Formats: sequence, C-alpha cells, structure tokens
Amino acid sequence: MEKLIKIIDKSIDSYMDIDGVYQAKIFEAMRYSLFTGGKRLRPIFMIKTYEIFSKDINNVLPFATAIEMIHTYSLIHDDLPSMDNDQFRRGKPTNHMVYGEAMSILAGDGLLNLAFEIMSKSIEYDNEDNGEYKRKIRAIQEISKNSGVQGMIGGQVVDLLGNHENMNRDKLKFMYKAKTAGLFQASVVAGAILGGAKEEEIEILRNFSLDLGLLYQIQDDLMDAEEDRKINKLTFLTYYGVEHTELKVLELTKKVFDSLDQLKNRNIDSLKEVTKLLVKREK
Amino acid sequence: MEKLIKIIDKSIDSYMDIDGVYQAKIFEAMRYSLFTGGKRLRPIFMIKTYEIFSKDINNVLPFATAIEMIHTYSLIHDDLPSMDNDQFRRGKPTNHMVYGEAMSILAGDGLLNLAFEIMSKSIEYDNEDNGEYKRKIRAIQEISKNSGVQGMIGGQVVDLLGNHENMNRDKLKFMYKAKTAGLFQASVVAGAILGGAKEEEIEILRNFSLDLGLLYQIQDDLMDAEEDRKINKLTFLTYYGVEHTELKVLELTKKVFDSLDQLKNRNIDSLKEVTKLLVKREK
Repeated sequence: MEKLIKIIDKSIDSYMDIDGVYQAKIFEAMRYSLFTGGKRLRPIFMIKTYEIFSKDINNVLPFATAIEMIHTYSLIHDDLPSMDNDQFRRGKPTNHMVYGEAMSILAGDGLLNLAFEIMSKSIEYDNEDNGEYKRKIRAIQEISKNSGVQGMIGGQVVDLLGNHENMNRDKLKFMYKAKTAGLFQASVVAGAILGGAKEEEIEILRNFSLDLGLLYQIQDDLMDAEEDRKINKLTFLTYYGVEHTELKVLELTKKVFDSLDQLKNRNIDSLKEVTKLLVKREK
Repeated sequence: MEKLIKIIDKSIDSYMDIDGVYQAKIFEAMRYSLFTGGKRLRPIFMIKTYEIFSKDINNVLPFATAIEMIHTYSLIHDDLPSMDNDQFRRGKPTNHMVYGEAMSILAGDGLLNLAFEIMSKSIEYDNEDNGEYKRKIRAIQEISKNSGVQGMIGGQVVDLLGNHENMNRDKLKFMYKAKTAGLFQASVVAGAILGGAKEEEIEILRNFSLDLGLLYQIQDDLMDAEEDRKINKLTFLTYYGVEHTELKVLELTKKVFDSLDQLKNRNIDSLKEVTKLLVKREK
C-alpha cells in the first residue's frame, strides 16, 4: 500500500513541477492542497479495481491522478469562507488561509481543468488500438458525469441549500449518493472500464462503490457527530438518529462485501483488503 | 449570424432544461449567466472556422457549447467579491449578486465540469470512424490546455498578482496571450481540427486566433481606459501608453487579415466577415 501511495504521489507531483513560469504561484497553491495528508483513497480504489482485470498500471495512473485532483479541488472550494468557512483541514491551514480566497478559487478551477487535461492527454490516438482509447473515453465520460452537476456538484448544492425543514428521505439519499459516493463510484467504475471488465462486472462494481461511498460518508457523520450537532448540520445521523444510522452501517458493510463476492471468478483479494481497511477505519 | 446565434443558444439551453431535480437551483444559476447578453463570439468563431472545412454543424456544436460554458464560468468566478468584485455585468447584476457567493462558485465549477462532460459525451465511439473521434479527442486536448493553468487560468493568475512594479514585457505578453487569447485560440483551432483542416492550415489559424484574441483584449483596454485608470489596473494601454497601443491595434489588424489570406485555396468569406465585425466593434 505504501508503495502504491508513493507511485500516486509521484504521478501527482510530476504535473506540479513547473518552476520559473509566471504563474508559478498557482502551482504552489495546488501542490499545497494536493500534499496535505490526503489518504489517496479514490486513486487507490481505482487502481486496485483496475488491477483485478489488467496489469499495466500506466494506463490507469493518469486517471487516478485526475480523480485525486478533482477530489482536492472540491475540498479547496468547499473550505472557502462563503462555503463551509473552514480554517483548518487535516490539522493544517486551509488553502485560502495560506493563499487567499482569490488564489484558492483559481487553484480549484486549475485542478479541475488539469484533471480533464491529463485524462484527455493520456489518449495517444496514434499509438493505441481501438479498444484502448474507447475505454479511456468511456472512463472520462463516467468521471465527468459523477463529478458534475448530476454528481458531486449536484450533491453539494443540495447540501448547501438543505436544512432540517426542507429535507426529505429521497433528497437526502440523492445528496449522499451524489456528493461523496459520486467520486467513489467514478473511481471504481473507471478502474473497471479501463481494466477491461465485462459489463456485468462493471455493474457489480458500481453497486459496490455506491454502497462503499455511502458507508464512508455515514461513518464520517458518526465520527463528526459532536461537531455537526454544534453547527446544526443536517446529516444522515441527525436526520435518522443514531440507532437507525448504526444499523445502516451494518447493512451497507454487508452489501459491500456481498457485491465483491459476486466477482467470484476474479482475484479480488487486494480490493477486498483495502475495503476492509476503509470499513474499519478510525479517525 | 442571428440564425447561428439561435442555434448556439438552443444548444446551450438543451443542457439547462432539468426541471424538478433536487439541484435545480444550480441550473437556474448557470442558465442566468449563460443568458445575460453574451455575444457568443467564441462559439461563432469556432463554427465559422469549422465551416471552412466541413458542413455538418452537429459535429462542432457540442464543442461550441462547451467553449461558451468555459467562458461563462470564468466570468462568474472573475466577478466574485474576492476576485474583481463586480456587481454588474452587461448591465445586469452578476451571478453572486443574485445567487450568493457559494452558489456562484458551484455554478462556475458546474459549468466547467459540464463543458468537459458535453465534449466527452459527444464522442460516440461505436458509431464513428476512427478519424472522427481522433479529431474530437484532439479538440478536447486543445481546449483543455488553453483553458487551464497553461492558458486562461494561468493568465488570470498573472493578472491577479500583477502590478505596475512587478510587471515586465514578457510577463505582460504571457498574460495577454493566455488570458483572453487562450480561449480564442482554443475556439478557432478546435474548429479547424474538428473540420479536418490540414496541419499547416491549423497553424495559420492558430496564429490568426492568437492575434485576434490579443486585438480583442487591447481594444477592450482602449474602451475601458477611463475606468481602468481609476482603479489603477495594469493593462497593455497603461503599460505602453496610448500611442504604442494604437499602433499595436493596427499591426494586429493587419496580421489577422494577412493570416486569413494565407488560406487562399479555401472559402474564407464567412470567417472574414465575422472577423471584420469584431475588429470594427463598438462598445
């Protein structure tokens, strides 16, 4: 796992190494947030899924790098004063505390744009067979949908406008599915597509990733319970109460591993292992 | 021209028509800025360039729509309080004045993401010949580079950090090339690529679009001279003075039409016509 994180970090770093250019400051700002202790969960899940079906990691690495950039941009923008107004993340000052609001907005924009730049540039249309770049295009389509207004951003909007009065079950479900689970889904499904999984395997992994994303967010709610109560934040926990929430965690945990077990003809040991680590995580 | 603008507007509108979803507010906010009197210059130049080489406008329309979304997101974010703090644009309240800062940030993010979603989705890899989707991939690569940290966003960073003390000729040149000319270049070059232009034609049109973008921005400076002086804004005009700037306008105007005349074996009447309109524009 440490070896894999090093490979991911090196890949991210390779796009940030632009010294001497006039706009060097934005690279500094982007790099700052890319390297403040992120766990690289999304790229790890993408690569581990990919490796079930294919071996050459170079085909998935640009996409794994891109998904971490998309995740990072969303955190930078989320932390802004007009959004969550967070001054610290992972124990360090947030991007806008260090670089100012304007640069933070641009750094977020820059990372989102760079993600698509990296993914599209990874397609070398003259040196690849048909199947190879079809898979890459499909992966970009999958990621863009899940990170956009129908996915992560859509979930953030509902989160932004939501309160205890205007929320309902379906809306809350959409918010959770879109917001956190969106990028988990994008990561796992893109990994499966790029690896060359069969259609039915892709759908199994889609269900797996959605449940995993939900589980991850609900665990977060349980860990942040006290703080969320203070700021009157609407979460799955505050909406349904602790008993129902803990039952949901058990249910999702079961579903996650049941999904994996449906891929019985494949070697899923490694993906199962990282899933176990995620499910049992401590704060 | 009016007919073409209607086609572009209809295409933009087709992506905004999502009633009844939980995140409807962001579609409202995106639509607000997409339809506040933009001149659709970038899509028009993309389509007019495309039409020199190909006739079926449906292949270029998603890209023309995407470039207008990228342009619009950049205006929404530019206008934010921590950036230019503009309260009005084209005589109407800016996005954040209507929808608040948080929603404006998300609306900008949403439009940037949607642009790449639309472009990548336009590739129907099962129904197109090889050349068709190669061209589309290359167009995405061209647009993403010019809208990103090496292009428009990079130029915005230099603009944000620049002042009369720390500026120099090369830096100013980079800023102008990247900021406004970046998206003009992306529009024209993507149009040429999608249309199937030859490599040497693409390069002629690249030079044309860069000069045109510079010209457009410098004309803006001349028109906004009084206001820029008030806020002590650094522009080509305030850096070089009015005489040098007016000479530059003449020089660029000549270069723009000289470039077009190099495409002598093609019918460039229509592109020349919109170029003339742009060059002679009044505020």
